[in-house]
Amino acid sequence: MLNDDWKEQCGVVGVHGHSEAANLVYLGLYALQHRGQESAGIVASDGNHLVSHRGLGLVADVFDEAIIRRLQGHAAIGHNRYSTSGATLLKNAQPLAVESAEGGVAVAHNGNITNAIQLRRELESIGSIFQSTTDTEVILHLMARAADKVTIGRVVTALKQVQGAYALVFLTEKEMIAARDPHGFRPLVLGSMGQTAIVASETCAFDLIGATYEREIEPGEILLINKGGCQSIHPLPRVTPASCVFEYIYFSRPDSCVYGRNVYLVRRAMGRQLAAEQPAHADLVVPVPDSGVPAALGYAEESKLPFEFGLIRNHYVGRTFIEPEQRIRDFGVKIKLNPQRHILTGKRVAVVDDSIVRGTTCRKLIKMIRDAGAKEVHMRISSPPIIGSCFYGVDTPIRDKLIASNHDVPGIREIIGADSLGYLSLEGLRAVIGENTGASELCAAYFTRRYAVPTTGESNRDGHYKVIDTD
Amino acid sequence: MLNDDWKEQCGVVGVHGHSEAANLVYLGLYALQHRGQESAGIVASDGNHLVSHRGLGLVADVFDEAIIRRLQGHAAIGHNRYSTSGATLLKNAQPLAVESAEGGVAVAHNGNITNAIQLRRELESIGSIFQSTTDTEVILHLMARAADKVTIGRVVTALKQVQGAYALVFLTEKEMIAARDPHGFRPLVLGSMGQTAIVASETCAFDLIGATYEREIEPGEILLINKGGCQSIHPLPRVTPASCVFEYIYFSRPDSCVYGRNVYLVRRAMGRQLAAEQPAHADLVVPVPDSGVPAALGYAEESKLPFEFGLIRNHYVGRTFIEPEQRIRDFGVKIKLNPQRHILTGKRVAVVDDSIVRGTTCRKLIKMIRDAGAKEVHMRISSPPIIGSCFYGVDTPIRDKLIASNHDVPGIREIIGADSLGYLSLEGLRAVIGENTGASELCAAYFTRRYAVPTTGESNRDGHYKVIDTD
Amino acid sequence: MLNDDWKEQCGVVGVHGHSEAANLVYLGLYALQHRGQESAGIVASDGNHLVSHRGLGLVADVFDEAIIRRLQGHAAIGHNRYSTSGATLLKNAQPLAVESAEGGVAVAHNGNITNAIQLRRELESIGSIFQSTTDTEVILHLMARAADKVTIGRVVTALKQVQGAYALVFLTEKEMIAARDPHGFRPLVLGSMGQTAIVASETCAFDLIGATYEREIEPGEILLINKGGCQSIHPLPRVTPASCVFEYIYFSRPDSCVYGRNVYLVRRAMGRQLAAEQPAHADLVVPVPDSGVPAALGYAEESKLPFEFGLIRNHYVGRTFIEPEQRIRDFGVKIKLNPQRHILTGKRVAVVDDSIVRGTTCRKLIKMIRDAGAKEVHMRISSPPIIGSCFYGVDTPIRDKLIASNHDVPGIREIIGADSLGYLSLEGLRAVIGENTGASELCAAYFTRRYAVPTTGESNRDGHYKVIDTD
Amino acid sequence: MLNDDWKEQCGVVGVHGHSEAANLVYLGLYALQHRGQESAGIVASDGNHLVSHRGLGLVADVFDEAIIRRLQGHAAIGHNRYSTSGATLLKNAQPLAVESAEGGVAVAHNGNITNAIQLRRELESIGSIFQSTTDTEVILHLMARAADKVTIGRVVTALKQVQGAYALVFLTEKEMIAARDPHGFRPLVLGSMGQTAIVASETCAFDLIGATYEREIEPGEILLINKGGCQSIHPLPRVTPASCVFEYIYFSRPDSCVYGRNVYLVRRAMGRQLAAEQPAHADLVVPVPDSGVPAALGYAEESKLPFEFGLIRNHYVGRTFIEPEQRIRDFGVKIKLNPQRHILTGKRVAVVDDSIVRGTTCRKLIKMIRDAGAKEVHMRISSPPIIGSCFYGVDTPIRDKLIASNHDVPGIREIIGADSLGYLSLEGLRAVIGENTGASELCAAYFTRRYAVPTTGESNRDGHYKVIDTD
Repeated sequence: MLNDDWKEQCGVVGVHGHSEAANLVYLGLYALQHRGQESAGIVASDGNHLVSHRGLGLVADVFDEAIIRRLQGHAAIGHNRYSTSGATLLKNAQPLAVESAEGGVAVAHNGNITNAIQLRRELESIGSIFQSTTDTEVILHLMARAADKVTIGRVVTALKQVQGAYALVFLTEKEMIAARDPHGFRPLVLGSMGQTAIVASETCAFDLIGATYEREIEPGEILLINKGGCQSIHPLPRVTPASCVFEYIYFSRPDSCVYGRNVYLVRRAMGRQLAAEQPAHADLVVPVPDSGVPAALGYAEESKLPFEFGLIRNHYVGRTFIEPEQRIRDFGVKIKLNPQRHILTGKRVAVVDDSIVRGTTCRKLIKMIRDAGAKEVHMRISSPPIIGSCFYGVDTPIRDKLIASNHDVPGIREIIGADSLGYLSLEGLRAVIGENTGASELCAAYFTRRYAVPTTGESNRDGHYKVIDTD
Repeated sequence: MLNDDWKEQCGVVGVHGHSEAANLVYLGLYALQHRGQESAGIVASDGNHLVSHRGLGLVADVFDEAIIRRLQGHAAIGHNRYSTSGATLLKNAQPLAVESAEGGVAVAHNGNITNAIQLRRELESIGSIFQSTTDTEVILHLMARAADKVTIGRVVTALKQVQGAYALVFLTEKEMIAARDPHGFRPLVLGSMGQTAIVASETCAFDLIGATYEREIEPGEILLINKGGCQSIHPLPRVTPASCVFEYIYFSRPDSCVYGRNVYLVRRAMGRQLAAEQPAHADLVVPVPDSGVPAALGYAEESKLPFEFGLIRNHYVGRTFIEPEQRIRDFGVKIKLNPQRHILTGKRVAVVDDSIVRGTTCRKLIKMIRDAGAKEVHMRISSPPIIGSCFYGVDTPIRDKLIASNHDVPGIREIIGADSLGYLSLEGLRAVIGENTGASELCAAYFTRRYAVPTTGESNRDGHYKVIDTD
Repeated sequence: MLNDDWKEQCGVVGVHGHSEAANLVYLGLYALQHRGQESAGIVASDGNHLVSHRGLGLVADVFDEAIIRRLQGHAAIGHNRYSTSGATLLKNAQPLAVESAEGGVAVAHNGNITNAIQLRRELESIGSIFQSTTDTEVILHLMARAADKVTIGRVVTALKQVQGAYALVFLTEKEMIAARDPHGFRPLVLGSMGQTAIVASETCAFDLIGATYEREIEPGEILLINKGGCQSIHPLPRVTPASCVFEYIYFSRPDSCVYGRNVYLVRRAMGRQLAAEQPAHADLVVPVPDSGVPAALGYAEESKLPFEFGLIRNHYVGRTFIEPEQRIRDFGVKIKLNPQRHILTGKRVAVVDDSIVRGTTCRKLIKMIRDAGAKEVHMRISSPPIIGSCFYGVDTPIRDKLIASNHDVPGIREIIGADSLGYLSLEGLRAVIGENTGASELCAAYFTRRYAVPTTGESNRDGHYKVIDTD
Repeated sequence: MLNDDWKEQCGVVGVHGHSEAANLVYLGLYALQHRGQESAGIVASDGNHLVSHRGLGLVADVFDEAIIRRLQGHAAIGHNRYSTSGATLLKNAQPLAVESAEGGVAVAHNGNITNAIQLRRELESIGSIFQSTTDTEVILHLMARAADKVTIGRVVTALKQVQGAYALVFLTEKEMIAARDPHGFRPLVLGSMGQTAIVASETCAFDLIGATYEREIEPGEILLINKGGCQSIHPLPRVTPASCVFEYIYFSRPDSCVYGRNVYLVRRAMGRQLAAEQPAHADLVVPVPDSGVPAALGYAEESKLPFEFGLIRNHYVGRTFIEPEQRIRDFGVKIKLNPQRHILTGKRVAVVDDSIVRGTTCRKLIKMIRDAGAKEVHMRISSPPIIGSCFYGVDTPIRDKLIASNHDVPGIREIIGADSLGYLSLEGLRAVIGENTGASELCAAYFTRRYAVPTTGESNRDGHYKVIDTD
């Protein structure tokens, strides 16, 4: 999928018990850069103070050696953020760090608190003042108002009041706390390196720093990590897990291990299953790079068709391009992908992508492939049709804009202009993933509109807010 | 006085009832740039939202046309800030703007809340979270927790709890509120331009935008300005006024009218009084530019001595200089002032400055004047010896570092290396100012250590805080 | 090949006869970004003046809409530059634009003038002053001193004096001239779009702007493009062509058509040939992304072994990383590539890369693959051993640093720590390329040390120069 | 004079024989910042190489410690440049540094070569290529083409061909050369500090670094400074000196010693002479700060009228201001000067300025003073009416725009709206300056249109050039 349609979400990292904790967090954020490119931040603790640095942009741009050196201490947490453009503000960058009666506390959050607006209103009505427009800040206010003496108690009290999706890492002067919501919507894993404990959104962060993957942090689990070691509690009511299936389909890096399985291998298996369900009368299989590559490899393998890179990606693509006034055909797609005429001409091509969101990009892509000489284009999608928006931390278009929400497969095929169109079935998806995970544990609301947590319909977008910063 | 020793404080501006309110505030901040160069900010209201922009640096660097255009609306407030280097952070830049149950509220503050640390601790203990390390934020939290329905009520409730010095301008979606503490420590004036109401720290802000000076906002007065007009209340207990005398001596621009009198003329009169009290056997009178110029003119006039610019100021002086390793004699002073050998050689020189703080700079200056050929140097200071620190919004050295706190006049003379040293007497100062203001209304704690408001001795400096930002 | 060892060279683009020439050149540079990331520049002609903009960094950073708008005119040329760090100076950025008696002239150059130092000395001895440390400037001085009346004549006179490698695009107020050295060392292609003529280093630049590929500009050909059309001359003595074979192996984008053949397909065929020559007892074939991917696909196809992405590339890799003081194992390689334990564990892996330069990176890579669980690592290289440096425009390490210059294949195998090592034979390479190009036309001095043009041994590096800029 | 009308020119510094030469040059440029604010540069020599750094902006912005550290060596030259906006390009920043057959040579120039365009055309016609649009580069080309073996010989050969105004400092690996044109149009002084030789445009540069003023470099003198000491030659034909009188009136810093006399004292004497020639029926004397201050002091002294700062300057004025759409009266003047109502009201004011150029600013100023309550405004100018442009290195408006070129004094008085207007007479000016300098030695073409060097009427402005850079 070309990321015009869909934006990434967030990545979190935490390191406890290492003399260069902030540097390790920085590298972890580097490995998780694909989860958010709008801002990056690290808060470190030297046992007495929290020192914070956040900035807009990529990890490599936000930090330099001098800054990392200032972020001294044995523990640190970090965050990569994606956000809609209106709210790309430094004050919304994470980790958020505040002072309360108990000392400093910082938090990094991946997810979405579905009752944040309502909680914010209640908190404001009893005198709380908000500094950001993030849902995450609600958690800090609930903690500040909790009666509990210790931080872990305040965290539990706060989390008992919030609903929705969260993979959280907290840092205080002395402790690091990791928490995952009871449904386990968003991923969070635990690793180690000698006496050092590490938590991260994905295991690829462990690989870079040479840490060992221990296990997933369980849905509903809260983990307290301090000098005394690592203590796990499950204070929240147990519910059926509903981890986001889209981590397998698109979000996670292929080299990560998510919900216990290697993402690349899952995607490859999806491709094989797709080939079994939706074969194509084609001469070759072409992936939409990069996210469609593993599924295309599986599709080619299962269908015994040759695999070719018929679309070449430009790796230097930035955010903006200056297009001539005399518009160039399919400019937006072409700047990212170049179809290979030598490979495509006269061929019946099975094009494999991971998903279709709005359909606009897909339509342009197919046209471009045809213009490059393909005789037939058979679109194959390694996930089911997307009919529902996500309310748990991913910035999806509203339901109305989802092509599969308004059209059946033949209708979509016509709109995108493919000779044939085949989606992986939900059953097929479950079968592939369920081999050792259990499909019932995954949230597939994208494909079913069955949401594990009721949503108010109120978005956390900026429109609600009275103060607009342009700092 | 060369501003090595003493830093400026803050400047505030507010404009209500003008279609280009933010642009006028921007110009007002320009005129008040001498009151703070570390950060600048403006918050504007279009009737529905507050839009904020703040940045580190000078007004001319923080704002451009595009930003001013985004700060739309009929009302706006602005702030120039000085701060100690450790806390020169965007999050401490003002105006602070937050959201509460009643909507948005922004505030710009010149002064110092002497019980801020204590109030902050109390607020934190009941669940408030602080986003800045400024004392100003305490006021916003007190307002957020006030039971009053309307903003003016919340302001009154908050101000009843705080002690110390404040010239404040608040902005909500619909209203602008100006307030001055009961002692009137810091200046705040009211101007008008047709239907537009303007408040500012000094009248020079009115001159630039062509507004008319109406009157001082009175000590203890709170002014509510909205569509309905301008309403004045005095809800706080009346106390003896204690406006800062140093506005006359050093802080204010000479072309401003402070506490009802033109600063330049007051300084000139101080110089005349100084000459009467402390005549010098000198050949010429030389000012320490720029702040010593008006007093030196007065001194020359009264003493019938020729006035000469024997020290020439370099107007391009920035913040840092790269000094060779082979140190240059008196480098720090020389970079700012160049003594004129042609004028000074063989002369007995009366050097007039507004004050001596630590004495270090004064000692270097005198040495430099001697090196330029002066036969005798007679130092004359147009204010009394400074023996007390300020706790009302000016960043003064602690008492221990004040040369006059530890030495009598002959002792100081010896340390700074002058042939003679004469200060203006406190009585003389009162006489000059008191002609139509009443010296009893001014705070002269610098010279007397008699503080109008008790101070806890606890500073608001960053040392207290648990979270250190380097964003 | 990971680009630690080898740097890209340069890319050139020229557009004539289009009202938005500069914008098209900008897009062409975008497509050629892989050929140079240190600086970018465009010079446009409006018929009367040349307007130039150059900057350090990527195309997307150097240009914005306002700049493109200022680069008005019907013709424009552009350049992406790679350079050694010492000379990454704005003054060395291209296109170089100067004024001479005949008007303005600008030039963009890919290649290396082997007798530049000698020519420069001669020119200096008769009074020429140099503004850059590039070899390219020599051409402009030779033109300025030529007796010819018209620009094309001056170009011919100049090129008759220079030796070495060049793909050049000149721009004057009225004309665009493209030239390729008689050996055709560096690629240069001609495209069209209606009445618009386009030249570029690679065809991928045509694809993005929707132009049609016409043909290669021939070795020794000079092309004059103006209002009257396009005129071709061959004024230089004919020699045996010696186009750079490494364009096929590494430099060019896979979707480009170089010397008449699609690069991706050539690389794939190299992989097949490699498998035929150097089979491996392996369980799977793993490419070193991205440059090794096409050859690995061919290798897998021919050897009937499964193809797997066992090394995942981090696409957000920037220039610098902050490594902890407690060094991380194989950090430099890991930051770019993550080995997939799930895929590699217990496997005999055939790793396919395009070349080995110094061997250092390859050694780390193999170690990393073993640490990820591979049982055996069989290194397969889709080109012959590199034993000679390039003197024709590519910044290669000196011969002494080339591992294959000092070691035979068994020796290299031992140093890099592979279980087996196989290179493609020179004959095999010729066979693959020669199918319809003729291997005799390609320069293979990398593999043979047989140079088509004698080299002085004098490098054009900065060491020669007397003036060092840090602007 | 407010510098809307008239821009500064350039400042040069050279230091030879000091281990921290570049740092001293940096400080010298600091002291000469008033002579040019558009760009700054330093070239240093370590005996083997010239290292250069130049940048757009103020000295304090262009250099930092790391840069100064890189500019190592025993000798260095520097330059502050003013330029018209179109040509504010890095490539035009000085010192220019080039390589020639003899090694590196750099040059810093204050002045204007009046036959530069003609020389440039000749040089281009024989094959020279120009890198900048400055007249200064012509000198380097003439040197490069000179037959002489040693640098000093090349300098002499070059200077024999150029006409016009120049104060030059050259630097090679081993030598520093200073030269002043035969008329001595622009100032250049020699100082020392132990074994260190220093040249600079004004003596204020010596004061800051603690050097001793030795003497003026004489008109037509060329000074060769190297390890062997300092050698003076006079190879150019002797002509009547014509040093720029405007250095006394406006350009130089008041604390500088120009052509042997202290500027401040000269200006003061001009004020006294002005009072004698043009008395005013006034209540007080008010200077236009800062350049009018010394003359106003002299005027007040001679006329026995009180001196008052009736106009207060805003010291934070930058380059641009955002003015509201509802224009503010006299905005442009007000942003720089604030008239003091308390001082001016009801008074007959003698306003003293150094000159009137176009008259526009003066008219606004007088209106503003009247609006502030002045009863009468008597304008007094401490120099004669300006009727001619400068062709020797100062960017003056063309003759047509000079108010005194088109109007007599009564006409000017009416246009600017003064109650009376009095200029210093040319005889008075000569009398004041001539006391020990000899007025015949000064160029007064501004006031007489009698030019010491014939001018072609061709300007060196950018319009001539074919290549326009926007780097």
